[in-house]
Amino acid sequence: MIQKLITNIKKTNAPIVVGLDPMMGFVPENITKKAFEEYGETLEGAAEAVWQFNKAIVDSTYDLIPAVKPQIAMYEQFGIPGLLAFKKTVDYCREKGLVVIGDVKRGDIGSTSAAYAVAHLGRVKVGGNLLTPFGEDFATVNPYLGSDGIKPFIDVCKEEKKGLFILVKTSNPSSGEFQDQLIGQDKRPLYELVGEKVAQWAESCMGETYSYIGAVVGATYPEMGKVLRRVMPKSFILVPGYGAQGGKAEDLVHYFNEDGLGAIVNSSRGIIAAYKQEKYASFGQENFADASRQAVLDMIEDINHVLENR
Amino acid sequence: MIQKLITNIKKTNAPIVVGLDPMMGFVPENITKKAFEEYGETLEGAAEAVWQFNKAIVDSTYDLIPAVKPQIAMYEQFGIPGLLAFKKTVDYCREKGLVVIGDVKRGDIGSTSAAYAVAHLGRVKVGGNLLTPFGEDFATVNPYLGSDGIKPFIDVCKEEKKGLFILVKTSNPSSGEFQDQLIGQDKRPLYELVGEKVAQWAESCMGETYSYIGAVVGATYPEMGKVLRRVMPKSFILVPGYGAQGGKAEDLVHYFNEDGLGAIVNSSRGIIAAYKQEKYASFGQENFADASRQAVLDMIEDINHVLENR
Repeated sequence: MIQKLITNIKKTNAPIVVGLDPMMGFVPENITKKAFEEYGETLEGAAEAVWQFNKAIVDSTYDLIPAVKPQIAMYEQFGIPGLLAFKKTVDYCREKGLVVIGDVKRGDIGSTSAAYAVAHLGRVKVGGNLLTPFGEDFATVNPYLGSDGIKPFIDVCKEEKKGLFILVKTSNPSSGEFQDQLIGQDKRPLYELVGEKVAQWAESCMGETYSYIGAVVGATYPEMGKVLRRVMPKSFILVPGYGAQGGKAEDLVHYFNEDGLGAIVNSSRGIIAAYKQEKYASFGQENFADASRQAVLDMIEDINHVLENR
Repeated sequence: MIQKLITNIKKTNAPIVVGLDPMMGFVPENITKKAFEEYGETLEGAAEAVWQFNKAIVDSTYDLIPAVKPQIAMYEQFGIPGLLAFKKTVDYCREKGLVVIGDVKRGDIGSTSAAYAVAHLGRVKVGGNLLTPFGEDFATVNPYLGSDGIKPFIDVCKEEKKGLFILVKTSNPSSGEFQDQLIGQDKRPLYELVGEKVAQWAESCMGETYSYIGAVVGATYPEMGKVLRRVMPKSFILVPGYGAQGGKAEDLVHYFNEDGLGAIVNSSRGIIAAYKQEKYASFGQENFADASRQAVLDMIEDINHVLENR
């Protein structure tokens, strides 16, 4: 699946991923109204609104982008109907040829981690059948529990040719509370140790030039990103925090390798709620998907501009 | 909800929780066969088998125990039908008066953590309605992302009078890889810092004598449990690792406070797959739920014996 990601990035010349994190406040009124008319003000109604919103944005942007990253929490909050909308979104994006990164941040140990891996990246055995529960291409994983938590995911990745992005240094203001703690004789930060572990896990699961095992490093910490790029040379870095969270394109150059690959930059509300920004307000609420398309084009230009001029 | 947990523990005189982590290999053949006859070898068939298995165990043990802890990964692996079985299990256990600890180990930041909190502990606004997505009483949460990840959960807990168990020191062999790293001037382990943060968060969210904010500390690290008990005096400790993972009752005394409260010990396969142990083999596969009841009685006696003799 890392090969498909690389192929898609080269084809679109766009090292970006659109975060499908549909908060209800982002969904235009006409979509919500129609969904509520059909299903009532229910979990089903909310899920239908979210799904129609996603579909319009995917239809309007899929030819420009290599991948999407649905954030499962935004679906889980609408219970079972919400998770059905998540599954429909995953399936629809895969049909459109997109790589789907399930932003699920799961993590447990042993057979429990294996169950999460199967749920999101694998197939589950039921009697004589092998069935696909959710079927994303990549999943984000939390490393706090150590190797016992990661290895069952890696086993499924090897079997299914799927991939991971393991949280190393997250984009939020308080990410340093635990991740930046200085450890050991040489007083290096914890996130570097986690990065070293990712590099080891990555070695065990290589594609042609890059590993199936990547990392998450926030755009909001560019100096740390520079170090982590060197620590994990074979891993793709999934970079959240561009745009709405304050990360700028010029901060991102060091997340990429010399080959122009090795990173994929996420934007969520900056794309899917573009119509709410002053910059794209002229599209109007009814043309929200066109605003998203323009925001994608602008983001690609912004990032490629700094990559070409580094 | 911490008051209900304490009331239930006092009523049953059993500081234990039954982990409802139904792997397919635990479900007796006659249940699986019947479910497959009705739904085929499908995700629906697997979910039905899991639900019938759970229901029998809950019916056979609910009067002896204060709480259950369904592990959502074991349901998520069966996709949407599996999560429906999770929801049915949560609802059924709450109807039976049990406290339900959703072992979901979620964790993200900001509005995403808020969405997870709403999904599992809160209510989501849809139009003019407030709806309950999954409705557990407590949830387990991963702290790797720092305060930004935890505070949205605490906000929902305050509103809904629900609670958390935050991962501090997990029971697995490699938990020390990151959690035991020595930090700062005084070279204390990371899990102690996480424990101190839990104590602070706990202060902000108090019930009568205990906080709504608890911690997870594995039974397999009793010396660390002793320290963490003092670090987090107002927090309940959820203790995995008893039984199958090697934790013994005598290791557990220091997880409790002087009042005999402050800890709740989990057993999963030791209870729900008791009929597979030599000790309970005489019950036979068809009486698996009776074997589980006997295993619960034995566990309560084992733990109370060491608590009375400390």
